[in-house]
Amino acid sequence: MEVITSPSNSKVKYWSSLLQKKYRDSEGVYLVEGEHLVLEAIRKNLVVEIIACEDFKINYLGDIYYVTYDILKKISKVETPQKVMAVVRKKEFSIIGNKILLLDRIQDPGNLGTIIRSAVAFNVDTIILSEDSVDLYNEKVIRSTEGMLFNLNILRKDLKTFIPKLKEDNYKIVGTRLTSGMKVKDYIFPKRIALVMGNEGNGISSEVLSLCDDFVYIPMNESCESLNVGVAASILMYEMGSQNE
Amino acid sequence: MEVITSPSNSKVKYWSSLLQKKYRDSEGVYLVEGEHLVLEAIRKNLVVEIIACEDFKINYLGDIYYVTYDILKKISKVETPQKVMAVVRKKEFSIIGNKILLLDRIQDPGNLGTIIRSAVAFNVDTIILSEDSVDLYNEKVIRSTEGMLFNLNILRKDLKTFIPKLKEDNYKIVGTRLTSGMKVKDYIFPKRIALVMGNEGNGISSEVLSLCDDFVYIPMNESCESLNVGVAASILMYEMGSQNE
Repeated sequence: MEVITSPSNSKVKYWSSLLQKKYRDSEGVYLVEGEHLVLEAIRKNLVVEIIACEDFKINYLGDIYYVTYDILKKISKVETPQKVMAVVRKKEFSIIGNKILLLDRIQDPGNLGTIIRSAVAFNVDTIILSEDSVDLYNEKVIRSTEGMLFNLNILRKDLKTFIPKLKEDNYKIVGTRLTSGMKVKDYIFPKRIALVMGNEGNGISSEVLSLCDDFVYIPMNESCESLNVGVAASILMYEMGSQNE
Repeated sequence: MEVITSPSNSKVKYWSSLLQKKYRDSEGVYLVEGEHLVLEAIRKNLVVEIIACEDFKINYLGDIYYVTYDILKKISKVETPQKVMAVVRKKEFSIIGNKILLLDRIQDPGNLGTIIRSAVAFNVDTIILSEDSVDLYNEKVIRSTEGMLFNLNILRKDLKTFIPKLKEDNYKIVGTRLTSGMKVKDYIFPKRIALVMGNEGNGISSEVLSLCDDFVYIPMNESCESLNVGVAASILMYEMGSQNE
């Protein structure tokens, strides 16, 4: 078994480059870390190659590169990396389904991860991220999806130009605000829907607000200014899913 | 105006000690940071004293200690602290109300903060933390409550001995599991209820499970193993609140 030990090895340089968004974008791949995520990616047939610590055992018929633990530390963002990583292909797809979630400028990686996990739980077909949202392949996002990243279609689009296309395609655009609109429990969700969630501090941008057909809100005690955006999105997806059961 | 500049000043030593749980416990106070939280604490009449950077302006009639920014850095856990902090009294109370949330071994500070914020939103009266849960006055918990910490009764108890007392007092103990029990939408929430949420990885401990009267669950797609505990607790509190409207 050959073990890569040199930090100047070209493969190591390539893997390290994937810590930066621009290389993930140009290469169309990203890194995942830990046995749970690597096995999920293998199951979904998305693995390009595996990077394993020299003493790590894994059953995989494709390319495996063995490295020292010091090399793993070089290509991981965490201080004590797990012993296996994989280079994973970004998923491509064309059908977006009837239930879409649009995220307008979500900034916190943990919130995005939580939303992705809940979207899988509540049968959302596709998430569309605005171009100025946090990068989907940020390692904190991947970690907080708990392996659910591979179960969902996720696209990045300019919402101002993409929403009009959805409208032509008979999607109802449903915005969320703190109080105005209909209580979510009274709202009849349309079959073809794009639900819009806004930024953590500022909500939905005014350009996107003006494109919404309906608005819904979650009633709450007036002493609470707002819910965490991951919680709010999850409650709305839960209600949307319950109606379609 | 007198400005404290020396790290060996006795007040500075006292404030620094509050970064440790044992001193927060023995003193019955804790630190909050940032104008938003400090103003909330003043409004709730919970402030013991204010610690302000020498160039910070604040309207407050009680004790204010001015310090240099270097001193603030010493008593804050974040790298670039905000310019105002307060020593805040832990809230005391005796009435726990009809709607209680029991948290069995919640570990993540962000999850606890999110749950507290949602509990205020959905009119829960009291949260009871198990003794082995994360410390409520951990600075990450305080930050993620977004100022809602002062709006809720929160107690720390040994759940195994506290739940039997609740039962004697006619509370129904409702556990949450991934699948067994009743779907939350079909469940009629009792007027006097203690809803139990379990640990992030392992759920409710077996001793506490055996004390539950009913179980509810949130239906979800089978490819999703579980929801984030902050999301699951929020959906359950939302449903409980909706029925009592």
